[in-house]
Amino acid sequence: MKKIKAGIINVTGYAGVELARLLCRHPSVELVSVTGRSAAGKKLKAAFPHLADLDLSITADLEGDVDVAFSAMTHKASAEAIVPLVKKGVRVVDMSADFRLKKASQYAEWYDFEHPAPELLHSAVFGLPELHRSSIAAAGIVANPGCYPTSVILALAPAVKAGIIEADIVVDSKSGISGSGRTLTIPTHFSEASDNVRAYGLGGHRHLPEIVQELDALSAPGFVSVTFVPHVVPMTRGILSTCYGNVRSGKLKGGREELLKIYTEFYRNEYFTMVVAEPPETKHTLGSNLCLVYPLLSAQTGKMVVVSCLDNLVKGAAGQAVQNMNIMFGFPETAGLEAVPLYP
Amino acid sequence: MKKIKAGIINVTGYAGVELARLLCRHPSVELVSVTGRSAAGKKLKAAFPHLADLDLSITADLEGDVDVAFSAMTHKASAEAIVPLVKKGVRVVDMSADFRLKKASQYAEWYDFEHPAPELLHSAVFGLPELHRSSIAAAGIVANPGCYPTSVILALAPAVKAGIIEADIVVDSKSGISGSGRTLTIPTHFSEASDNVRAYGLGGHRHLPEIVQELDALSAPGFVSVTFVPHVVPMTRGILSTCYGNVRSGKLKGGREELLKIYTEFYRNEYFTMVVAEPPETKHTLGSNLCLVYPLLSAQTGKMVVVSCLDNLVKGAAGQAVQNMNIMFGFPETAGLEAVPLYP
Amino acid sequence: MKKIKAGIINVTGYAGVELARLLCRHPSVELVSVTGRSAAGKKLKAAFPHLADLDLSITADLEGDVDVAFSAMTHKASAEAIVPLVKKGVRVVDMSADFRLKKASQYAEWYDFEHPAPELLHSAVFGLPELHRSSIAAAGIVANPGCYPTSVILALAPAVKAGIIEADIVVDSKSGISGSGRTLTIPTHFSEASDNVRAYGLGGHRHLPEIVQELDALSAPGFVSVTFVPHVVPMTRGILSTCYGNVRSGKLKGGREELLKIYTEFYRNEYFTMVVAEPPETKHTLGSNLCLVYPLLSAQTGKMVVVSCLDNLVKGAAGQAVQNMNIMFGFPETAGLEAVPLYP
Amino acid sequence: MKKIKAGIINVTGYAGVELARLLCRHPSVELVSVTGRSAAGKKLKAAFPHLADLDLSITADLEGDVDVAFSAMTHKASAEAIVPLVKKGVRVVDMSADFRLKKASQYAEWYDFEHPAPELLHSAVFGLPELHRSSIAAAGIVANPGCYPTSVILALAPAVKAGIIEADIVVDSKSGISGSGRTLTIPTHFSEASDNVRAYGLGGHRHLPEIVQELDALSAPGFVSVTFVPHVVPMTRGILSTCYGNVRSGKLKGGREELLKIYTEFYRNEYFTMVVAEPPETKHTLGSNLCLVYPLLSAQTGKMVVVSCLDNLVKGAAGQAVQNMNIMFGFPETAGLEAVPLYP
Repeated sequence: MKKIKAGIINVTGYAGVELARLLCRHPSVELVSVTGRSAAGKKLKAAFPHLADLDLSITADLEGDVDVAFSAMTHKASAEAIVPLVKKGVRVVDMSADFRLKKASQYAEWYDFEHPAPELLHSAVFGLPELHRSSIAAAGIVANPGCYPTSVILALAPAVKAGIIEADIVVDSKSGISGSGRTLTIPTHFSEASDNVRAYGLGGHRHLPEIVQELDALSAPGFVSVTFVPHVVPMTRGILSTCYGNVRSGKLKGGREELLKIYTEFYRNEYFTMVVAEPPETKHTLGSNLCLVYPLLSAQTGKMVVVSCLDNLVKGAAGQAVQNMNIMFGFPETAGLEAVPLYP
Repeated sequence: MKKIKAGIINVTGYAGVELARLLCRHPSVELVSVTGRSAAGKKLKAAFPHLADLDLSITADLEGDVDVAFSAMTHKASAEAIVPLVKKGVRVVDMSADFRLKKASQYAEWYDFEHPAPELLHSAVFGLPELHRSSIAAAGIVANPGCYPTSVILALAPAVKAGIIEADIVVDSKSGISGSGRTLTIPTHFSEASDNVRAYGLGGHRHLPEIVQELDALSAPGFVSVTFVPHVVPMTRGILSTCYGNVRSGKLKGGREELLKIYTEFYRNEYFTMVVAEPPETKHTLGSNLCLVYPLLSAQTGKMVVVSCLDNLVKGAAGQAVQNMNIMFGFPETAGLEAVPLYP
Repeated sequence: MKKIKAGIINVTGYAGVELARLLCRHPSVELVSVTGRSAAGKKLKAAFPHLADLDLSITADLEGDVDVAFSAMTHKASAEAIVPLVKKGVRVVDMSADFRLKKASQYAEWYDFEHPAPELLHSAVFGLPELHRSSIAAAGIVANPGCYPTSVILALAPAVKAGIIEADIVVDSKSGISGSGRTLTIPTHFSEASDNVRAYGLGGHRHLPEIVQELDALSAPGFVSVTFVPHVVPMTRGILSTCYGNVRSGKLKGGREELLKIYTEFYRNEYFTMVVAEPPETKHTLGSNLCLVYPLLSAQTGKMVVVSCLDNLVKGAAGQAVQNMNIMFGFPETAGLEAVPLYP
Repeated sequence: MKKIKAGIINVTGYAGVELARLLCRHPSVELVSVTGRSAAGKKLKAAFPHLADLDLSITADLEGDVDVAFSAMTHKASAEAIVPLVKKGVRVVDMSADFRLKKASQYAEWYDFEHPAPELLHSAVFGLPELHRSSIAAAGIVANPGCYPTSVILALAPAVKAGIIEADIVVDSKSGISGSGRTLTIPTHFSEASDNVRAYGLGGHRHLPEIVQELDALSAPGFVSVTFVPHVVPMTRGILSTCYGNVRSGKLKGGREELLKIYTEFYRNEYFTMVVAEPPETKHTLGSNLCLVYPLLSAQTGKMVVVSCLDNLVKGAAGQAVQNMNIMFGFPETAGLEAVPLYP
């Protein structure tokens, strides 16, 4: 079978390099070009010794023709890099936020820039296969969701769609440190981050509008009110989100059993999102494309609590990008994503 | 100045051994007796090499006369050990839960045992100096609060007392692994706990009733409804609690400034509980008796969010026990607790 | 193509469960039976949620016919379980030490038991493919090497074989904590092991005789004198061994270049053992079957230093077991072992 | 008692900030001035929230008169800052390498700069109290040893002085990551450093010449030949050094007992260096000024092995600097250094 050709724009961040790791074992894809700014000119395997199998040089721009391009650029720069590709007919999976939000004005509000191609926002598809699989299949641009939003939307979608949860929702997320990327900062310096937990983004985290947009789309515009507080915990990979909301009056008379049934039905045909019977742990997803979801009702207060977890670099980034590509090109959805979680 | 004599019942757990570490440098206390079951007969410093300065043997029972006894026994066993001491006139700081709850029936409900001395529950004082300083000074039994409750009650007390927060409160806590003690279990085995985050106690955690009891006491019986989910994160020491609640209608017209003022006033004269201007991190408390509290209002939803953190073995256990003892015996409240947090 | 049937004896330790993880994606193997003592009767995926894809129950004994059995039992028990299988014609990869040593008397000396089947010791093959590939292909019992010995022998074999290193060798190894297994102990309790480094086995570690046996076999009986000190460092997976020895008088006139050539030649045709140009790190091998080797000569003292590293549960245990099985059954040597290291 | 006034040059690195932490509780010292480059103008406690008790501003230069100045500058810059202070009669503890080496030419060789004040090298005293206590008491400049050299020299001094160890010595050290300082680098980025062990400095580490200088001084010029390989392990604080050497022919007929006696005698009167009966662990020194030393003879090869450990920021840097200051000013040697190790 002929392989499609793929390129990665900005391979040198954690999402980009994880994508290279996944694509180098994908049965239907040949990774032909990888770009990077400061590392341009270097061999990929010199910069990243774990990729010894990939004999590619890092270049300043994508080289040769590709069928699919993945962008792991930061916001704004990503849109700028993608627009010319889209015009050439290259299909794109964008791991930045640049095509996730439907309202162009939100880019000014949350990301401090004027969107360079607002006309593309509506044809771009939010790349969460569990919600938008058929649109993804046909899309020219797939906007790969953020790591937090993937964990949160998958935790809440069944409840919001079923109309069983009130609008006022609290989301408390705990992320490993790779979520902050490879850029050097004091808070991600080992001696500062180890043995430490902290909340951040308390003024409003950029992942919030995607969460609200997608949950609103499952209920009604302006419905949900999400208070989202992300935290950083001392581990490399993994996100665990704990979501809290009240049961809507008159709903869920069947209690936990009914709740479990709603969730199980919702994800019945999914390959990677699993409703689990015991509280999930991030280690149960390490290196895999799984998202585990555990809904319950508090015995003391009746509040609905949903815990979800995933590997932020796989289902939260590069793995989901590959899953989206598989859907776009008609490959088996699990192709290249069969890895069993690494335990312990 | 003559030193008082102190004993530790069950020195071999993490709370007990931390207490020994603190007392061995206390200017007004002589640690004269330490007990342990399996380690009885061993030298303390053989079992715990960091205590090389303490030349004590671990015995099965307290030996000699003591002015104050600290119990680091587990629940039920602690009450059984304490009752005879109390009858002999020894003043006691109990680090177990056995004298924290005012209603004897709650022990059957939450801890599965019939309380052996329910008549002592009302004279025992809940040992949170920020709320009960003067009662502690006179108490025969001080019930040292749990690690989670200390972080949660200190985070919420000013808001609950001021009547500015609604009753429906979500508490999401993140604890280091020493909170699970020194008993060997699969979840606290290094290879299982490292690089892992998990929620637990989802059916109801035993620290919940103390939280509710103390917050109710600041408002009205049966007022608060707390949904409490503890999590374990891969670090040894530290708890960070993130508390969420809605502002009561018509209250807090002054916004964050008013909120900050309420908190700052509440803790104005405290040595160890500090209202901070930046989001606190557990590393800012490591090895110290500090509790840092950071209240804010969500810019997106208006919800009140309070983040607090402390070292679970110090302010969350042994340090607070020493603080209580200082109050009981009229020592300076900071005696033996001057350690500056270890950073990084 | 028809798959062979495989069984794992004692799947519940870290080596066993890692083997299950690898075999469940092997293209030519069907895992049909897994045993465990305390977990017998449980579903494998209930005990190990990351193995959700494997629908097997843990049984007390191997069930059904298998073509190959892997033993992850502890020493002595392993030999006892293997002998009847061998008599039935099942080919065995033993991950215990029971068939690694050629002299039966060494089991009494180092492992405190009388070997139950000394007559099988000489037909068993020490399962280090880099040294014994052709014998492994024909073997009935392959004795999978220990994790430390794999890293040490691969680091030293080229130098010892070439006769360029003196007999007096120091080996200082650093291991992650999963090397101590899943059995609960104080030193592997998270709060004790985190932020801690310690040397152990200072009276003599059981992996020493295998190291000596294999290095002697490459030079002369009784030749090498290895001082081996293992250390534990706070991470889950990985071993890094640093080996020190003097260059033999008159040898290695060509300096580092000659040294590098000797090593590169030695491992030229290997799939998994790579001589690398920069000092290797355990993270470059995480989750993969790689062993990285880096030889150099000290600029200050001329001493030969060889650094090697690997994932102790893969090349140091289950991955090497699969590699041995691949050789035994004529599968491609890399089958089921293609995983690229997980980074970061 | 009147306190002496102290200043810290470059408080913003880990050694500097640790010094501030220690001095802020020292009974005989008032910290009056702290400097920093990029942080100049900031409050110390804003930059380092754990120092909430210190109400000092960071300034570009030392302000006011000080009796003692500590330099935590990097090499070369440190000497340039110190020389004018010395001329003004200020006594100095230099935590850089600038006054550790006696031969000015070694600065060109190992540190790539021409020493600006070679005439001061011989009056400066190498600040290891265990070897140079009386000279330290009288010194104008005390050159605080490096973290690795402290652990290595203390491990080897008794054996070298007693003439029982051969000259050819291997030192394999394992350090926590704070030893690399607070400067941001890829290898100290959390996601790169966690779950990772690596050797570095393989071309020759700058701490080697101090080790050789001090060991030679205990035996004969040019005597020792030290092969030193430092490693980084995933923890914040701590160094463990494992030292290997052969027993000199005809020596140590009394075996381990004689060895132990030599070590115990050597450190009999020390406050902080302890010969221990069990293999020491870095966690037994966390936050304290202790150095633990454990000598033994290999049962298999007869080689002498000495394991030592300490907290690299305390006995390996700031704690030793305070100890030196205590000696210089006639304070009790343990003043301000009474902290019991933080466990667990």
